[in-house]
Amino acid sequence: MPHKSPIIIDLKFIPLEVMQALKGAFSGREVINLADVEHVRRDLRGIDYAVVWKSAPDLFSRAPDLKVVFSGGAGVDHVLTLPGLPDVPLVRFVDRSLTTRMSEWVVMNCLLHLRQHRAYEARAKAHVWEDLSQPEAADVTVGVMGLGVLGQDAIKKLGVLGFRTVGWSRSKKAIDGVETFSGGEGLEAFLGQTDFLVGLLPLTDETRGIFNAGLFSKLSRSGPFGAPVFINGGRGGSQVEADLLAALASGVLRAASLDVFEQEPLSRDSPFWDMENVYVTPHVAASSDVRALFSHVEHQIARFESGQPLEYLVDRSAGY
Amino acid sequence: MPHKSPIIIDLKFIPLEVMQALKGAFSGREVINLADVEHVRRDLRGIDYAVVWKSAPDLFSRAPDLKVVFSGGAGVDHVLTLPGLPDVPLVRFVDRSLTTRMSEWVVMNCLLHLRQHRAYEARAKAHVWEDLSQPEAADVTVGVMGLGVLGQDAIKKLGVLGFRTVGWSRSKKAIDGVETFSGGEGLEAFLGQTDFLVGLLPLTDETRGIFNAGLFSKLSRSGPFGAPVFINGGRGGSQVEADLLAALASGVLRAASLDVFEQEPLSRDSPFWDMENVYVTPHVAASSDVRALFSHVEHQIARFESGQPLEYLVDRSAGY
Repeated sequence: MPHKSPIIIDLKFIPLEVMQALKGAFSGREVINLADVEHVRRDLRGIDYAVVWKSAPDLFSRAPDLKVVFSGGAGVDHVLTLPGLPDVPLVRFVDRSLTTRMSEWVVMNCLLHLRQHRAYEARAKAHVWEDLSQPEAADVTVGVMGLGVLGQDAIKKLGVLGFRTVGWSRSKKAIDGVETFSGGEGLEAFLGQTDFLVGLLPLTDETRGIFNAGLFSKLSRSGPFGAPVFINGGRGGSQVEADLLAALASGVLRAASLDVFEQEPLSRDSPFWDMENVYVTPHVAASSDVRALFSHVEHQIARFESGQPLEYLVDRSAGY
Repeated sequence: MPHKSPIIIDLKFIPLEVMQALKGAFSGREVINLADVEHVRRDLRGIDYAVVWKSAPDLFSRAPDLKVVFSGGAGVDHVLTLPGLPDVPLVRFVDRSLTTRMSEWVVMNCLLHLRQHRAYEARAKAHVWEDLSQPEAADVTVGVMGLGVLGQDAIKKLGVLGFRTVGWSRSKKAIDGVETFSGGEGLEAFLGQTDFLVGLLPLTDETRGIFNAGLFSKLSRSGPFGAPVFINGGRGGSQVEADLLAALASGVLRAASLDVFEQEPLSRDSPFWDMENVYVTPHVAASSDVRALFSHVEHQIARFESGQPLEYLVDRSAGY
């Protein structure tokens, strides 16, 4: 039997969840979990595989012989910016669980804003029984930016809940029953009819800072709430937080749901934490199911070692 | 042209919304909106139609000649208990908007509990960036009690979001892809696998007080959160609030979402308002769209006056 290369695990997830998911995973192969103190000085040369999420910057100098790098999430910007990334296949994590979790978060946040949840929470706190004038989902247009696997799943589920939906992506995507826009020329028309803007974009040179004052000012103000809502489940680097704070304070934006931030963890003195019209979650919209991640990696390694092509490869020139 | 009977409007909704929806409604027919002071002493004899939601108890003695009574909502218990209800057709309000609004509320509340929203809100308030171990929707079984139009729509949408779903109703209902139970004999098996219990039952002699200590104790405790959640969008009279408070305090129930209460409005000194594990909304889960209600009533009156059968008739012996 040929020697099986060890696999490096470097995942900044909940440590206990990683440990538990490793039980029984990667059978017949040594697992080097860099979260274990015993591996702090471990020689990582000659190792073929690494599964990474927000790795230490010295990973690739310590492990110079990697043949495949697996991202622990759908996004890969955290890998692409690591120094010394070797020119080897980079595989993103795509699975049913990650997709459905993101859609749970997106649908929940659209419903929280639609159903005026914070206003009802404030009334409950004051022991006040009072109903508010209530638009229904069909009165609100949700515009989703980013129409990959995540964006398409979210748009489908938002439609089932009754929202009117539109979509935007860099290159034109056709989705049954949904009006889609693309490129710079399609952006303005897309924004002009969007009441709730959902960001599910990868972080690339083109999307960095795309959610800025100029973009917010082009969103629809003719929806039932009179001002738009911004919901970002993609990447914090896509939003200009100074502009976002100003827009939320001035009423250019009515409210926001933010799972991602320019700097993570979000600083303890960030104003976002306490804003009445902002929901903050700590980059958990689509937490990877660690067991599903490992079985995906095992499956891809099996393909790789039997000469089949790897799936879900990242296009480095596009940045995602 | 024959004389058209006036129509009585007695809806305890937001007054401004009723007034606005009345503009242009019931063309060619006098509208007597009992919310107007001018109608306080109005003679209501000889009038054929009334649209009612939580009417004053003297309505039917003031208007003894009604030929059809229209409920302002899907439920009719508030009509059936009015003194002097004449033996005439009673029509419930069913429309797309009312159904989709209820499903918005049900899906949002299932997601709030699934995604540990209150726990994340508490962390945000403390400026703490910390992720929690997060089950996905497929790990949770939502059991819906009441499989009428509302229950079936909610179950379908919960399934699209990824929840495992089961259903219970008084008489057996078949729903594609969903395990359903019925009657007293099916209830225990249904409860035993239900992690989140959604109540969408009409209030009848059989359902009064059905959500009590005995029922709560039979719910599943093997779900990912270890204890069940109760979500009631149906009728407050179905829940025994003393039992509910005890179950929430002792951990028999993990949490609840309550849109309905034994007494409405909920008393200002009710403990529910301040409970960390309870979401309270003021009977707004499926607020009727008033314009849609009036066009439904106009449509049914047109059928009635041209000799066609009325739709959505209430079966008084069943109580719904």
